[in-house]
Amino acid sequence: MTIDFIPPNTVEVPEIPYDSKVELPAQRTAVIVVDMQNDFVKAEGSLEVPAARETVPHIQQMLKRARELGITVAYTQDTAIENDPEFDIWPAHCIRNTWGWHIIDELAPEKKDMVFQKNRYDGFYGTGLDHFLTRIWHVEHLVIVGTVANICVLHTAASAGLRWFHVVIPANGISALTTFDQALTLRQASYLYNGHVVRSTEHIQFVRSEEGKERLR
Amino acid sequence: MTIDFIPPNTVEVPEIPYDSKVELPAQRTAVIVVDMQNDFVKAEGSLEVPAARETVPHIQQMLKRARELGITVAYTQDTAIENDPEFDIWPAHCIRNTWGWHIIDELAPEKKDMVFQKNRYDGFYGTGLDHFLTRIWHVEHLVIVGTVANICVLHTAASAGLRWFHVVIPANGISALTTFDQALTLRQASYLYNGHVVRSTEHIQFVRSEEGKERLR
Amino acid sequence: MTIDFIPPNTVEVPEIPYDSKVELPAQRTAVIVVDMQNDFVKAEGSLEVPAARETVPHIQQMLKRARELGITVAYTQDTAIENDPEFDIWPAHCIRNTWGWHIIDELAPEKKDMVFQKNRYDGFYGTGLDHFLTRIWHVEHLVIVGTVANICVLHTAASAGLRWFHVVIPANGISALTTFDQALTLRQASYLYNGHVVRSTEHIQFVRSEEGKERLR
Amino acid sequence: MTIDFIPPNTVEVPEIPYDSKVELPAQRTAVIVVDMQNDFVKAEGSLEVPAARETVPHIQQMLKRARELGITVAYTQDTAIENDPEFDIWPAHCIRNTWGWHIIDELAPEKKDMVFQKNRYDGFYGTGLDHFLTRIWHVEHLVIVGTVANICVLHTAASAGLRWFHVVIPANGISALTTFDQALTLRQASYLYNGHVVRSTEHIQFVRSEEGKERLR
Repeated sequence: MTIDFIPPNTVEVPEIPYDSKVELPAQRTAVIVVDMQNDFVKAEGSLEVPAARETVPHIQQMLKRARELGITVAYTQDTAIENDPEFDIWPAHCIRNTWGWHIIDELAPEKKDMVFQKNRYDGFYGTGLDHFLTRIWHVEHLVIVGTVANICVLHTAASAGLRWFHVVIPANGISALTTFDQALTLRQASYLYNGHVVRSTEHIQFVRSEEGKERLR
Repeated sequence: MTIDFIPPNTVEVPEIPYDSKVELPAQRTAVIVVDMQNDFVKAEGSLEVPAARETVPHIQQMLKRARELGITVAYTQDTAIENDPEFDIWPAHCIRNTWGWHIIDELAPEKKDMVFQKNRYDGFYGTGLDHFLTRIWHVEHLVIVGTVANICVLHTAASAGLRWFHVVIPANGISALTTFDQALTLRQASYLYNGHVVRSTEHIQFVRSEEGKERLR
Repeated sequence: MTIDFIPPNTVEVPEIPYDSKVELPAQRTAVIVVDMQNDFVKAEGSLEVPAARETVPHIQQMLKRARELGITVAYTQDTAIENDPEFDIWPAHCIRNTWGWHIIDELAPEKKDMVFQKNRYDGFYGTGLDHFLTRIWHVEHLVIVGTVANICVLHTAASAGLRWFHVVIPANGISALTTFDQALTLRQASYLYNGHVVRSTEHIQFVRSEEGKERLR
Repeated sequence: MTIDFIPPNTVEVPEIPYDSKVELPAQRTAVIVVDMQNDFVKAEGSLEVPAARETVPHIQQMLKRARELGITVAYTQDTAIENDPEFDIWPAHCIRNTWGWHIIDELAPEKKDMVFQKNRYDGFYGTGLDHFLTRIWHVEHLVIVGTVANICVLHTAASAGLRWFHVVIPANGISALTTFDQALTLRQASYLYNGHVVRSTEHIQFVRSEEGKERLR
């Protein structure tokens, strides 16, 4: 048989081609922070992803560098209604205007930042994200960080990749509930979208100079 | 550390909850056959997925049963242009009006079937698929089969899941290039979208009776 | 010549087929209030539509009837950023978090209502409106009121019509800057989308009974 | 009263600001030919728009000039299924694979041109048009011609305008069933989208030089 149609309990991970450095032109780049909300990140959150807390300092430092160069920073915010149909799949979480719905203080948006409320996993689905990236900000490169890696991060990265944004994902800036889910996220992101994955947010350089300006693809 | 942010070479697959039987109401169901085109399925194809050939008889038999009950069958057809930007990622494939672009004879669409040509992985992206499913056919349940599992099948299933279609995927009706990719497809499909995965197309029953008609979700 | 390709200064309006009564099933209907914000409605607003004020009591009374039957009420809220590109076309208006951006007190949303912020004319573009109408609320009939008739009302009605929602527009619930613009809105809405136009909000009846439940189209 | 909420039989047309010349950079422009199909254009067509025939030579000559400069030409093709729900509004028309569905010979697409089949009025709805314009061709300016002016032309122009394409419409390249409908198309196109309307296709110049390359908006 060519593959195991019904996978065994343990599988080999295809090699993930981490880049040692990615340079992105500040003018053409946006950083998207996905769903770093109390319900996902905090120990008291209703849908806690413990690994998410470990990503916070990495994201903070990268945001600091990005903001210093005037790079656009945008947020997605998972936003459920009471009795949301998603609660048939998940515990109730991120109900609008509740504590759990708010973005964590450590990564609080600045006043000028756009926060895209979304009802489902994909930051592009049912939001103005594509419009702002493409028609207002005219960016081509996206750094995507946040949680949950294989859920809202990956679905957002997929929609970005389909639209030929150049998507960069740092492994230490995303978090999942299992190592398998982390692995599949990095596999898909590096394999399918002509983006780049790096081990660390520190491997992403934002540059002001013109030479980084040409499209990477 | 909570998870391996940089995954090791081998990982454990979270348990995939296969259903032993799924019953779907004929009136409210569509079968979507994803990208079963010469370039992907045939040994001479430019982007061969060897496992795809093993899925053909399973898909054939299920389509036969579906058609007998008048169930809607729709196809996606990957459609590239000359010098398609996707050829920076993949070998040239599925260029419109070439041999490799055609759906394999074994699964040839019938005259009344809709074939949705798409330029990227997701059958919903840049096509009329959502319009036909939702506004014309008024279906709620989708059986998705075809190739490549973690690429066009999964991206199409994801878009369907976001829209709250009930998505059913049989493991022996989808094919990937590696077992890891097959595993991640079944993981995501069973974990994220409130759909169902089954081991075999034979575990999917189409029923005419009213009792299957209520929404499964 | 068949028509005036360059229209003269005065034109005949095609007959608009006003219905004398439209009955809508409460369970399957939503009312959408478009852009009734201070900047458009109030004399001090930066993009005042004087006729909008005349529609307020009509909309209020209809909303009261709708809410009594538990009908879903949704709002669109035009939402510009500083230096929005739309300000090349229009005076600055509806900048988020300013006075002009707020929905007028007379039609203030209730806590449970969804308000869809949009950056451009069409309430469906870059928002979750379609997702909520179709996937969450499962409605089929829309009453659309608000302002500006030929801009945000008509573009929202068009997107609804393309998706085969049954769209009902009352002439005294929408407002334009010129009579021509009002006329073209009613022409398009009655001619193209299989919807209905009525002279007055009072000609719209919401019914609880089952007999109104079948699709009107 | 501020306006006639119920318009009279005859109305004044707001002044339409025709440009005497629009220059478009060849590299950044696409021409979109909307629905110039037998059913709409030919006397034997099932949904004849007599004025459409008068536009054919104007469109032909403009296409010739555009093709000489290598400008992208794309087509929309209205595509109905048997028993299409649109036939509750219109006579049956443009059923796929019938004579009436084909684009008229006088404007036949060249082999390399993309033809976007659409089921509803808007060329962007349920098609890959946006993806090709934005992600593949990277164009910013659109000349839109074809029929029916206030239906498929205007809905396509609206979707383009919302996305901040610069939309140019020549009055002698579009056709409607009534002069009112022609007037409303030109009104909306010139008033709402920051595009330009011109009286004649001859007022549109395609330029190769760099100076036309900057965005017009």
